[in-house]
Amino acid sequence: MKILIKNGSIVSMTGDEDPFIGDLLIENDRIASIQPDITADADEIISAKGMVVMPGLINAHNHTPMSLLRGFSDDLKLMDWLEKKMLPAEERMNEEDIYWGAKLAMAEMIRSGTTSFADMYIHMNQIAEAVKEVGMRASLTRGLVFNHNDGGKRLTEAIDLIKRWSGQADGKITTMFGPHAPYTCPPEPLKEVIHLAVEINIPIHIHLAETVEELTIIRNRYHQTPAEYLAHLGMFEKLHVLLAHGVHLNDKDIRLLQGMRGGVVHNPVSNLKLGCGIAPISSMMKQGITVGLGTDGAGSATTLDMFEEIKTAAWLQKLNAADPTVMSAKEALRMATIGGAKLLHIDHETGTLEVGKKADMILIDMNKPHLQPIHQVESLLAYSATGSDVHTTIVNGTILMRNRELLTIDEDELIQQASYRAKRLVQGL
Amino acid sequence: MKILIKNGSIVSMTGDEDPFIGDLLIENDRIASIQPDITADADEIISAKGMVVMPGLINAHNHTPMSLLRGFSDDLKLMDWLEKKMLPAEERMNEEDIYWGAKLAMAEMIRSGTTSFADMYIHMNQIAEAVKEVGMRASLTRGLVFNHNDGGKRLTEAIDLIKRWSGQADGKITTMFGPHAPYTCPPEPLKEVIHLAVEINIPIHIHLAETVEELTIIRNRYHQTPAEYLAHLGMFEKLHVLLAHGVHLNDKDIRLLQGMRGGVVHNPVSNLKLGCGIAPISSMMKQGITVGLGTDGAGSATTLDMFEEIKTAAWLQKLNAADPTVMSAKEALRMATIGGAKLLHIDHETGTLEVGKKADMILIDMNKPHLQPIHQVESLLAYSATGSDVHTTIVNGTILMRNRELLTIDEDELIQQASYRAKRLVQGL
Repeated sequence: MKILIKNGSIVSMTGDEDPFIGDLLIENDRIASIQPDITADADEIISAKGMVVMPGLINAHNHTPMSLLRGFSDDLKLMDWLEKKMLPAEERMNEEDIYWGAKLAMAEMIRSGTTSFADMYIHMNQIAEAVKEVGMRASLTRGLVFNHNDGGKRLTEAIDLIKRWSGQADGKITTMFGPHAPYTCPPEPLKEVIHLAVEINIPIHIHLAETVEELTIIRNRYHQTPAEYLAHLGMFEKLHVLLAHGVHLNDKDIRLLQGMRGGVVHNPVSNLKLGCGIAPISSMMKQGITVGLGTDGAGSATTLDMFEEIKTAAWLQKLNAADPTVMSAKEALRMATIGGAKLLHIDHETGTLEVGKKADMILIDMNKPHLQPIHQVESLLAYSATGSDVHTTIVNGTILMRNRELLTIDEDELIQQASYRAKRLVQGL
Repeated sequence: MKILIKNGSIVSMTGDEDPFIGDLLIENDRIASIQPDITADADEIISAKGMVVMPGLINAHNHTPMSLLRGFSDDLKLMDWLEKKMLPAEERMNEEDIYWGAKLAMAEMIRSGTTSFADMYIHMNQIAEAVKEVGMRASLTRGLVFNHNDGGKRLTEAIDLIKRWSGQADGKITTMFGPHAPYTCPPEPLKEVIHLAVEINIPIHIHLAETVEELTIIRNRYHQTPAEYLAHLGMFEKLHVLLAHGVHLNDKDIRLLQGMRGGVVHNPVSNLKLGCGIAPISSMMKQGITVGLGTDGAGSATTLDMFEEIKTAAWLQKLNAADPTVMSAKEALRMATIGGAKLLHIDHETGTLEVGKKADMILIDMNKPHLQPIHQVESLLAYSATGSDVHTTIVNGTILMRNRELLTIDEDELIQQASYRAKRLVQGL
């Protein structure tokens, strides 16, 4: 199968290369050629005149089934939101709800240009089945909390997920261990997870320092910051670790993370909406720590549009430093592409447009008043584009959306299912 | 001419009314009826099943022709941005550039659900002609700076604009005086403008306290804050005043504004992008000051999508207070509709859906994965919708966009003109 994309504005996200008009050839699941002019016998030719061709966006932190709870309990204090609304509704979720919730999230992600995502939730088999069916690339994690004794049930499920799904769906599915957060994982079980992860060489995906409350809890329990707590358990020594949030990291914490494998996923919209604060990602990046972007679940963020995260990430660093030069459009786009790929440990396969890499990319139609005139493509992509401007989404050489039409999801059935299930989940809450 | 909108989810923005499914009848330029079920002989029937019907958004601070400079000089320090990029490019603008720049802005605004806007710029006749042609509602202002002696040219143009255009285009055009800002308007000429404005009963549109630098300048010159400077010249005594930005207002400043006619327009995206700070709008609203939302020119904000301002305004107040309850989705939507209408002094005619008011409204298609399921319509509108979700835009009973197609603007010609003119404006800068 060959797909030839003609006359696009290629934004490769490799180093400092400027956008240029050219062609891109996909052979099966990989990028075969990127040249000013390619002639080839292709099964499909896509005219990308007036469009940007760029790497697919990577949503490095999500809880996909929470899309069923989108907008259900906005504008509440974090603990009210969590304890009175989210947790009771989540407890009602059955396996089918999980499947349809994940699919709803994927429909939104594909429509807004995301090709890969990292997910931490429960009932991961259902999510994995949905991922396989839909055709996205995903890093799946069974969330592990150890504050209630479950006789090892969760950990067994986590190991099962890793054994059963790692490398499945033509290699598009990868897995991680998911100890939930410092405040839900005491030292003993957390050490056990770290030991297991090292043993079978699987990365870890964990929340870190999302709220001020977390700092207080960890200080009271262990006289440490959350980052110190993880560091002292040896988490950053041998493992690739995906740290979600990192809102409340001080300079000493950031130094602890220097040289770590993996990095931090910044979720600016969720952090704003829950009143958490601004993660010091400019400082982290200065120290060489990899930063990616994520939406968090739609239960908090309301939207899974990564273009919102891109612009918000840049805005917040400018605000924090009272200096508009502190983060550029290009840097923000890099976080959402190659940055996220590094965090998901798939940067050898995706995150940039390069010959030999997997064919994960999006086409963005620039022929619209809000994306004209074109002085600097990256500025328009970072600050003016939204997910709705994505015209075509390709993952692993397969077109998942063409001209805004989803090809692997029946959208009418999906919306009907989501609507019907969502009502039951929140009834009386 | 009668237009009947059937089975929409009516979000009227009047008081605390909850959304309900119903019909809305437009007769000529006004809303004739809003009922659960209306039967009428209509010239056009719009099925709004699965759509929200809400008041058109009001962009209360814009410099429309700057759309030609969108994305041209992002990520620069404010003074570099202004002096090295914006001002030299603006100096090259001729009357035709102004006309096409304003039209580009209007195309984007209509496509993203804005029906009214306040504009401050130069060559206002060209903008007024474009407004009349396109069919939007606008409050037009000739910007006045007095730091160079121009022999009264600007003031004469301001008075000409008011005489020639107030009430034109079937009443859709109103006008204001536009002394630019405290730091560009010394006391004597500013007093003269205030005197003129009182005499002919015309509101004032002025920038206030946008940057820390402005505070320093005004303190050095007058030993006052910018708000004190305006208050001591009597600006808030008899006039309706539209204050743009108000980022750096202290508690005493806010008390000075209590009871003022008009209010403050908050431009969160522009303020973030230029690293200005967060305007204390929650405090202002607590003191009864009317707050609306605006984009500022696309030269700074890059986008004119008011849905970006709505969500960003709510996020920033939550961040500032570290409390997600401090501003609700509904309050943010109110700022963008009836709040803006009050600032433009047109709230007797627009800003809510009420029988007898002018028919300014938008239809938003909710039948999309990112706007499903529907737990709370206002949350989805405030936090998940973008301008691209607007299906139909109606101003003064005339449909300006139907099913995403602009009816009063030739989009191909517009993009061609904008693109061609933009190149000349920035060449060599």
